[in-house]
Amino acid sequence: MRFSARGHEVSVVDNFSRRRWHEQQGTSSLTPIRTLEERIEAWREVSGSPIRSYVGAIEDGDFLTDVVIETGPEAIVHYGEQASAPYSMANREQAVETQFTNVIGTLNLLFAIRDHVPDAHLVKLGTMGEYGTPNIDIEEGFIEIEHKGRKDTLPFPKMPGSLYHLSKVHDSHNIQFACRIWGLRSTDLNQGVVYGIETDETAQDERLSTRFDYDEVFGTVLNRFCVQSVIGHPLTVYGKGGQTRGFLNIRDTLQCVELAVENPADAGEYRVFNQLTEMCSVGQLAELVQRAGAELGHEVEIEHLDNPRVEAEEHYYNPTHTKLLDLGLQASYLGDELVRSMLKTIERHRDRVIDSAIDPRTHWKPSQAPAGAR
Amino acid sequence: MRFSARGHEVSVVDNFSRRRWHEQQGTSSLTPIRTLEERIEAWREVSGSPIRSYVGAIEDGDFLTDVVIETGPEAIVHYGEQASAPYSMANREQAVETQFTNVIGTLNLLFAIRDHVPDAHLVKLGTMGEYGTPNIDIEEGFIEIEHKGRKDTLPFPKMPGSLYHLSKVHDSHNIQFACRIWGLRSTDLNQGVVYGIETDETAQDERLSTRFDYDEVFGTVLNRFCVQSVIGHPLTVYGKGGQTRGFLNIRDTLQCVELAVENPADAGEYRVFNQLTEMCSVGQLAELVQRAGAELGHEVEIEHLDNPRVEAEEHYYNPTHTKLLDLGLQASYLGDELVRSMLKTIERHRDRVIDSAIDPRTHWKPSQAPAGAR
Repeated sequence: MRFSARGHEVSVVDNFSRRRWHEQQGTSSLTPIRTLEERIEAWREVSGSPIRSYVGAIEDGDFLTDVVIETGPEAIVHYGEQASAPYSMANREQAVETQFTNVIGTLNLLFAIRDHVPDAHLVKLGTMGEYGTPNIDIEEGFIEIEHKGRKDTLPFPKMPGSLYHLSKVHDSHNIQFACRIWGLRSTDLNQGVVYGIETDETAQDERLSTRFDYDEVFGTVLNRFCVQSVIGHPLTVYGKGGQTRGFLNIRDTLQCVELAVENPADAGEYRVFNQLTEMCSVGQLAELVQRAGAELGHEVEIEHLDNPRVEAEEHYYNPTHTKLLDLGLQASYLGDELVRSMLKTIERHRDRVIDSAIDPRTHWKPSQAPAGAR
Repeated sequence: MRFSARGHEVSVVDNFSRRRWHEQQGTSSLTPIRTLEERIEAWREVSGSPIRSYVGAIEDGDFLTDVVIETGPEAIVHYGEQASAPYSMANREQAVETQFTNVIGTLNLLFAIRDHVPDAHLVKLGTMGEYGTPNIDIEEGFIEIEHKGRKDTLPFPKMPGSLYHLSKVHDSHNIQFACRIWGLRSTDLNQGVVYGIETDETAQDERLSTRFDYDEVFGTVLNRFCVQSVIGHPLTVYGKGGQTRGFLNIRDTLQCVELAVENPADAGEYRVFNQLTEMCSVGQLAELVQRAGAELGHEVEIEHLDNPRVEAEEHYYNPTHTKLLDLGLQASYLGDELVRSMLKTIERHRDRVIDSAIDPRTHWKPSQAPAGAR
């Protein structure tokens, strides 16, 4: 919608896998999501601009190749992946599905670009989770290493925290290779944790609403805390809460993608932008939501759960993130007002909250799972 | 056979994919390869020891899990991958097949180990090609990085040279994760280029012969040069020939695997051994074969072809490889005598050489391929 509103000719490829995964686990977006057809029709009414849609799976290389040939894109924004860490850690089948969907889908796309639109700019959604939490500053994709008196600039070493995050590491390596060997151009957006509900585009018509997930599998942490605040559930911090991550507002993610597309990588260039606007620990987030919620009459405790994940709960974290700022990113920041606005939107959808979907059921170590839950 | 001869109870899993790939491209091992059943029977006759076989694909997680449950292994030596760089670069279908077979097969294995034999030691065949040719010394899997006044020991950054080599990088990341999160134990053998024909075990009966590939897809460089020498074909060096790689004798590979299995990694440990005994450039190899061949009456030229691959043809290369030596590896080295012995074996099979299978047909950049060959 953002690109369509700017006068670009836009096509969308979808296989509805996120909808299917929600169906399978009995969860759903807090905001009601219309069918793709309804959303495209609503957008046409609102903006006057058509969006073409192609329904199919990018794991199907022939299908994807046909789409690329038919649309002849100048830029491809690749969001088409299984994006949940817990989903990938639940069992073998879901781990395999995640790495298959993400790695093979992206590989098919690289070949389609190489063979049919070699000058197209691939903007790929990566994740800050690819890096893990090393004890050194995280650079944007590459690091100059001095070792035994010699130097080289090499890919930043990755220590991801889930099989989902690993699939993105695999993608990054494959894409970098395609740029190096075939001369493709790509920007890998290593995105932090996204929060927020609305964008300028979705705000124009409720039929255009985007997904707001808060469940343990697809939800992100601030969304979860906000929903817990509204339903009067303790804010569930996993472990000590010293886990520090990069965050950004959903509105800023669109700005970042737009900046990447408007300033494409050079032919043969694989560049990485760390896409976050600020850092915050999970414990600090919980305190922010607790305070903002209290102002609206939602008094909740902060509860520390045994961490279902395997991750450092106190660690150094200092990622560089200047490349998008250099391109002109105008960042918005987390604060009481933003959280209050999220809480108010959630209050309107209070009746849609599935309370039982929030507590963690997916354990990184199967031995940690309650008996019978493996 | 090596482990069976040492009194271990051995099972083998095979889906005959290498045989199938050779069939598809009309190539074959120089040495005749018997069926798995015939080889197992021959080994039983020679050694008195049975080897159990399971026929199926490790990409089939249920099949693999059943094998792991039934055999309850203490150690698993994982050779079950598509191992050819040119095969993976030929087209999209083969690229996808390679990454699917290798990444998903290994992922299935990690889950089977985690759930059924968590104490088993996974010995995984990696490749020195995962590292590429960085301008700094290559360490064994991990490197201490000092950056902006802070330090951490992190995975050695990888710059692999083909989609096959990338699949091994993906495996390495997945296995490291499984050790870190689930407490599995694994040794990743980053093997150099293997040469040679016989081992102590295969030498006992010609029905036990192992594969000797020299074709452009599955053959390795010294094997190719030796066959070219015998058939009177110029030794085809790709590009300048300054490409330097680690090498080791097929007999030493068995020693290395045995050393790894006999000295298992600790629970939770992911360790990497750089498995090579010496370094040599492709140009030096060609000169060695030319000289040794001449002594047997095979006079051939050295011919520099346009490089079908994308790789540095002159570069720094200094991989550390002390861990296997510390465990007791007794290395043999390349020399005229070894090459003459290979040439004599090849002479015996001269009539089986498929001359047309040797010249490169697979190009890393499709634009380099001759018209009609894409």
